[in-house]
Amino acid sequence: MVGLPARGKSFISQKIVRYLSWLSIRAKCFNVGNYRRLAGGSKPNAEFFAPDNIEGQRIREKAVQMAVEDMMNWFYEDDGVVAILDATNSTRQRRDWVLKLCRENAIEPMFLESWCDDQDLIFRNISEMKTTSPDYEGCDPDAATQVFYERIEKYVSVYQPLEEVLDKELTFVRLINVAEQVVINRIETYLESRIVFYVMNLHIKPRCIWLSRHGESVYNLEKKIGGDSHLSTRGMEYARKLPELVRESTGDANLTVWTSTLVRTGETAQFLPYKQLQWKALDELDAGVCDGMTYEEIEKEYPEDFKARDEDKYEYRYRGGESYRDVVIRLEPIIMELERQENILIITHQAVLRCIYAYFMNVPQQESPWVSIPLHTLIKLEPRAYGTKVSTVKADIPAVSTYKEKGTSKVGEPAHCTPAPTIC
Amino acid sequence: MVGLPARGKSFISQKIVRYLSWLSIRAKCFNVGNYRRLAGGSKPNAEFFAPDNIEGQRIREKAVQMAVEDMMNWFYEDDGVVAILDATNSTRQRRDWVLKLCRENAIEPMFLESWCDDQDLIFRNISEMKTTSPDYEGCDPDAATQVFYERIEKYVSVYQPLEEVLDKELTFVRLINVAEQVVINRIETYLESRIVFYVMNLHIKPRCIWLSRHGESVYNLEKKIGGDSHLSTRGMEYARKLPELVRESTGDANLTVWTSTLVRTGETAQFLPYKQLQWKALDELDAGVCDGMTYEEIEKEYPEDFKARDEDKYEYRYRGGESYRDVVIRLEPIIMELERQENILIITHQAVLRCIYAYFMNVPQQESPWVSIPLHTLIKLEPRAYGTKVSTVKADIPAVSTYKEKGTSKVGEPAHCTPAPTIC
Repeated sequence: MVGLPARGKSFISQKIVRYLSWLSIRAKCFNVGNYRRLAGGSKPNAEFFAPDNIEGQRIREKAVQMAVEDMMNWFYEDDGVVAILDATNSTRQRRDWVLKLCRENAIEPMFLESWCDDQDLIFRNISEMKTTSPDYEGCDPDAATQVFYERIEKYVSVYQPLEEVLDKELTFVRLINVAEQVVINRIETYLESRIVFYVMNLHIKPRCIWLSRHGESVYNLEKKIGGDSHLSTRGMEYARKLPELVRESTGDANLTVWTSTLVRTGETAQFLPYKQLQWKALDELDAGVCDGMTYEEIEKEYPEDFKARDEDKYEYRYRGGESYRDVVIRLEPIIMELERQENILIITHQAVLRCIYAYFMNVPQQESPWVSIPLHTLIKLEPRAYGTKVSTVKADIPAVSTYKEKGTSKVGEPAHCTPAPTIC
Repeated sequence: MVGLPARGKSFISQKIVRYLSWLSIRAKCFNVGNYRRLAGGSKPNAEFFAPDNIEGQRIREKAVQMAVEDMMNWFYEDDGVVAILDATNSTRQRRDWVLKLCRENAIEPMFLESWCDDQDLIFRNISEMKTTSPDYEGCDPDAATQVFYERIEKYVSVYQPLEEVLDKELTFVRLINVAEQVVINRIETYLESRIVFYVMNLHIKPRCIWLSRHGESVYNLEKKIGGDSHLSTRGMEYARKLPELVRESTGDANLTVWTSTLVRTGETAQFLPYKQLQWKALDELDAGVCDGMTYEEIEKEYPEDFKARDEDKYEYRYRGGESYRDVVIRLEPIIMELERQENILIITHQAVLRCIYAYFMNVPQQESPWVSIPLHTLIKLEPRAYGTKVSTVKADIPAVSTYKEKGTSKVGEPAHCTPAPTIC
């Protein structure tokens, strides 16, 4: 990363790590500020960051060394794929040092600069920072803001942005005021291009995402998986109740409804007075030869498959069907479009919602297929600068539970499920 | 489009139109050069393009007017979605005029500049131009080159590139030396972001793409569709022969092999001495409830579906399965990655190959599901500046035909198939 303090570097780093991890690409962020606090530079005053402060410089230098050392260990010992060195890297001299280090270790370097002259944006970042950064824990907020502005000034005097001509041999991306303008230079590999496309699509306008499963279906009642059945009587009741639930959660805000192409999500959305869009990519995980069967039937007819799925539910691919991993891959364009959009309500299926939820809530891959997402419940996600806030509203309409615990073919109220995390 | 002559504007325009059309987005290119020739400016000398040539300017002005008029008619009468005005649009004054026109007609304008100072690249474009442009038909090639350089000079004197500060209110993309550096400004809509990502991934290095179906499978012999069967004896023979066929076509060039996740493509690729990659997105069109059936069984069991599929094969979605349209959508990331890569050999399935072939060869949607792609045949695609060259090599190993003609459930040598176009 390259950029002055309060330019959203850590926000962008964390988003990238979350996105790549979700796609099963090992990614990790090394935040030099955290190492600086470890190295003895906690709760520093602004002077600490002055270019001529010898003690400050020594500690900051040590912090970078520690971060880089951990990063290298991670690459070699933990098979790391994408590491993010989250620091200001504000001078060409420092970047040359990073570059040399990468080249010596056969690491492909890409510089990602967040450049910002929108004062409102900077002010918002600082406000966020003073309440979340350990550097200002327990400080008076106004004093913290003042110290932070002074700290930024120390960097401004030496800061050298990436330049289209001077740095033309580097692989780099410059994000100007989030993604109002983007400059991309010498992007060469697949991963680089994925990351660039992802950051290009980020925005920081406040908005919410709502998630809901379809109402209870006839197949749910019959304990069958897959299929394309209609809603049950109680499922229809949920569909009729949904507009009210949504309105209570949104106020008067406008939104767009996304459904799958299956009958039960369309029926669930039918009374909502918003623009609607169908996505094939939101269809339920394809159970292949097991489509339309109950778990008991699957256990009897395909006992080995039944066991294999319990053992590694994320990787298990139904014969002629899909695994959770397959679903994540086909959901990638949905996630990309979700990042671009504002208010969206997604009405889809259990496995698909688990994958979408895992992206926003950073649920580890092995746990995501076991997260409990009950029927007749509206989930609200509020993306914030450093995570996502979750709240849920249960419609007061009974429904069966479709949760299947590990090691049994019974479905029912989960006793040992992975509870959906509500903060990340 | 914005750019001096010989900067690849028409190449980029045509690629975008082909890509969007393949994704079912109505797109069309309006090439002002073609209108200029109609308006009386055919076979012009360099002087014709001088900023102070009154007659030249009158004709060029008329050409733009004609192009824009046709473009507007196309938007309104043919439900056009993305029009490309392929012209130099070299001054800010001209671009302001286009901008005003768009705004008055509720059209979202995006400027795409191809800027190039790589003299080799320009020279290659000019060489291509003098052999393909109607302006130089029948001219001595050296003289044509000379005239073309002079013509470019006339534009250089007045050319105003897009600028990051001056034009910061516009939605624009600047491609610098193809996509070595890319500047993106105020990209706001989904379609804009798709187009930007697409052009970012284009390259013009010479390379080839080879396509092959898997060898004949056991299901092919049994006339069954779908499934995940092994190769037949003859199919295995094709797999053993494939390395030789490929080597004869590639010479010593290196390549990467892409297969689907199904057994028959892996078996076909097993003797190839190249790096291999499996893509779930390359799996055969999912026939849903009809998977594993013969066409005769489908006709008997699902007569209405059988008829509906024949009537609109592109749109027909198998119950619980996919349509050709669905396959195109899941192939989009494959096409994007193909554009980025160099030599690739794809071993996959009939329907999937029809879709990939349709992209490269600009086959209209309604025809693509009927294109004949026989077994045991290696297809070579060579992308050129203005189209794709195709050649095929048949392995001398017999195989059944899996081609099903319209209106029958019989498979066999096609009598009335859509022949695969071999030039586009």
